[in-house]
Amino acid sequence: MLDEHLKNTLIEIVGNENYQDSKTSLLTYSYDATPGFQSLPEAVISPRNTSEVSQIVKLCNQHRIPIVPRGSGTNLSAGTTPLHGGIVLLMKHFNSILEIDEENLTVRAQPGVITQTLIEAIEEKGLFYPPDPSSMKISQIGGNINENSGGLRGLKYGVTRDYVLGLEVVLPNGEIIKTGGKLAKDVAGYDLTRLFVGSEGTLGIITEALLKLIPKPETKQTILALYQNLEAAAKSVSAIIANHIIPATLEFLDQPTLKAVEDFAQIGLPTNVKAVLLIEQDGPEDIVKKDIEKITKICLANNAISVNSANTEEEKEALTAARRAALSALARLRPTTILEDATVPRSEIANMVNAIQEIAKKYDVTICTFGHAGDGNLHPTCLTDIRNQEEMSRVEKAFEEIFHKAIELGGTITGEHGVGAMKLPYLHLKVGEAGMDIMQNIKEAFDPNNIMNPGKMFPIERKRVVVEE
Amino acid sequence: MLDEHLKNTLIEIVGNENYQDSKTSLLTYSYDATPGFQSLPEAVISPRNTSEVSQIVKLCNQHRIPIVPRGSGTNLSAGTTPLHGGIVLLMKHFNSILEIDEENLTVRAQPGVITQTLIEAIEEKGLFYPPDPSSMKISQIGGNINENSGGLRGLKYGVTRDYVLGLEVVLPNGEIIKTGGKLAKDVAGYDLTRLFVGSEGTLGIITEALLKLIPKPETKQTILALYQNLEAAAKSVSAIIANHIIPATLEFLDQPTLKAVEDFAQIGLPTNVKAVLLIEQDGPEDIVKKDIEKITKICLANNAISVNSANTEEEKEALTAARRAALSALARLRPTTILEDATVPRSEIANMVNAIQEIAKKYDVTICTFGHAGDGNLHPTCLTDIRNQEEMSRVEKAFEEIFHKAIELGGTITGEHGVGAMKLPYLHLKVGEAGMDIMQNIKEAFDPNNIMNPGKMFPIERKRVVVEE
Repeated sequence: MLDEHLKNTLIEIVGNENYQDSKTSLLTYSYDATPGFQSLPEAVISPRNTSEVSQIVKLCNQHRIPIVPRGSGTNLSAGTTPLHGGIVLLMKHFNSILEIDEENLTVRAQPGVITQTLIEAIEEKGLFYPPDPSSMKISQIGGNINENSGGLRGLKYGVTRDYVLGLEVVLPNGEIIKTGGKLAKDVAGYDLTRLFVGSEGTLGIITEALLKLIPKPETKQTILALYQNLEAAAKSVSAIIANHIIPATLEFLDQPTLKAVEDFAQIGLPTNVKAVLLIEQDGPEDIVKKDIEKITKICLANNAISVNSANTEEEKEALTAARRAALSALARLRPTTILEDATVPRSEIANMVNAIQEIAKKYDVTICTFGHAGDGNLHPTCLTDIRNQEEMSRVEKAFEEIFHKAIELGGTITGEHGVGAMKLPYLHLKVGEAGMDIMQNIKEAFDPNNIMNPGKMFPIERKRVVVEE
Repeated sequence: MLDEHLKNTLIEIVGNENYQDSKTSLLTYSYDATPGFQSLPEAVISPRNTSEVSQIVKLCNQHRIPIVPRGSGTNLSAGTTPLHGGIVLLMKHFNSILEIDEENLTVRAQPGVITQTLIEAIEEKGLFYPPDPSSMKISQIGGNINENSGGLRGLKYGVTRDYVLGLEVVLPNGEIIKTGGKLAKDVAGYDLTRLFVGSEGTLGIITEALLKLIPKPETKQTILALYQNLEAAAKSVSAIIANHIIPATLEFLDQPTLKAVEDFAQIGLPTNVKAVLLIEQDGPEDIVKKDIEKITKICLANNAISVNSANTEEEKEALTAARRAALSALARLRPTTILEDATVPRSEIANMVNAIQEIAKKYDVTICTFGHAGDGNLHPTCLTDIRNQEEMSRVEKAFEEIFHKAIELGGTITGEHGVGAMKLPYLHLKVGEAGMDIMQNIKEAFDPNNIMNPGKMFPIERKRVVVEE
């Protein structure tokens, strides 16, 4: 619990109704979507505007109180668990879309807007905001920015970073800065905008975002390519892109995932094949038609047993929705679901899929694999039971080996979920010790008292290494 | 001159032939393409590989010797002038294209590769690297990355930042780090890759780059829209984009620029009109045709007096080449040419063009304007004589007012040329004092001894502001 005087000052800032410290509230915000990480905060505070955020941050900086900013808590790397106590800063009042500018193709929004709500408002104007994380029905834009969320349309359209033009941020010292603008080009100083994207709440609190929009593609077409051989599916992915076709979506699902999804969604997915590719192309009608024809040929030439087209809008939506539901579907099978996001160069997907299967066999654990094959971004998902310590230790060893394998293949430990507390022990594998040092130096440059989401990305005791001269 | 012992150690590292300190060499590297900035370095060193760069940097860090990394010196913000002496680090030996990976659509190159050489090698494979700064015939990729260069294709394809996937960098302490990879998605820690892009040589020395490629557009078409009214041209720009058409190129030239370019290039440009838009669309043939038709209609509806199409490949190339030659053409008219790059939201172009004309009149200076209208990125270019102090003081006042106006319209002081030494006095206008402080903190986190390109972006005496608690 926070000291009484501090608590009263905080209540003066946000009002009684926006300060919670009942046992139930603290418990509710003690975890996020990541299994195995839980810790009670001391208070849950919901500021109503940027000035209140600034006042809270100044106070916390003075008293060295940790702050964990939180959207919907869909984080999959324990990035929003208050591991060192302090306050959870809920952005629920920051839920307005402030402006859709049709001349400059931008949207200005508060961080607490639900991703899908934002996308729908934009599409009504004939415009398009591509980043579509699977959690988009409940995730918030602020969380997407802090995690640099990807999604199903990443291959053609990029990730959240590619659509953030400017930010309003409260720095750890309470100062408010504005970065970027409605500008296609801006090189005035360091690129703070993109530094905040993916910084996982460790550098400041985003209170407003200016996002880039593009014209909405005229049409789209969806196909399913079926395979009796995982490698053939992986090879099709490389072949499509090597043929200079960039589909909007190029998703991979293995048989166990397919079965779970079909059982959950019941839309008639084939469950008697070893793998499917869900492929979507969008754009002008003629181009989509031509691309889909070419893709079909390439898949068949790479041993797809058949390629089926979605005939109606409903069928297209159902397929994509089913893919988005993969995590929920798998989560029904066993008490604990651990979803990973090791990512490799696209050309290494076949190798990575094979390696995941071998590693699962070696440690005798159940790993289903699905994911954004076109991005090399796979989601090996372990179905397990966190209460079984012996099994969990095998699961951990398996994932550690998966991360090492990803790095060995020129990949990374996390493609879109972030480091958080969960991947923290593995970050050095990707960035090296000198990389860890410089990232830690950046953190200290922003937040010398380490109040912003401490214990994420770096261990809290890790100290800056000063090079002796 | 460097002290004799240090000089000998440096010669041991790079060999006699790669260490120059003759008066001629020092003079040659005392300036870049920016008028009015000149200062002699103490030595010009050309390392042959990353290990030599690391050794040089360690030595300079120990002895607090400034390092100015330099490509071709086409910088337009005095970013490569050795204002505080020290060494100029020439990247001329880093001139190899290391790999074009057709499966992952990436190119790995050393920073000293000429931009156009890289683009040609890539296009031979049917692939495309869009960033095309006007200086691309001589500029180097390393310089493009350090400045986050834009170019004529920025509107549709983005800037250099959008194509940098990974870097090898020698940090100011001499450590070598590798960032990113052949990955569509990577969120392992802070985004160091994009932080280095546009950091103007102040955070480290880029020794290798991994760049993203896309399939080469099938075809392109070029048109010229002529106007007797600048505002009509500016309004056409907004209208094209508000109609959800994103052309590859959307360039603006005013009459004085047109006259200078025609005089220089002699390709039959109309010189009896007040402004032209040079518009290019690329992509699949049908789409290009349809877009060009729509664009033509929009321009005519916005009072273009005529819209002419380039009929042959030669005509298209000649038009684009003529536009790229604008700076060279204008530079012939008077002894000194100062090219600026104030940038505004696209919807404010008409206001900005008007303001520039009024400001030029007010201070009685000659300013021609051309630039990337689709990006809101204008190049007001002042034709003057640096030896005439009285005129120069009016020129400076005019530009200061232009920067203030750009900020007032929601723009920035620099769209693609960087801050360097030239825009340093104006950076605070865009980023604010809190922004200046945090950028300075980042600089110190990387380079506590301020050896990397000192006096650029921040004044050398500016000290970090510590917030009292």
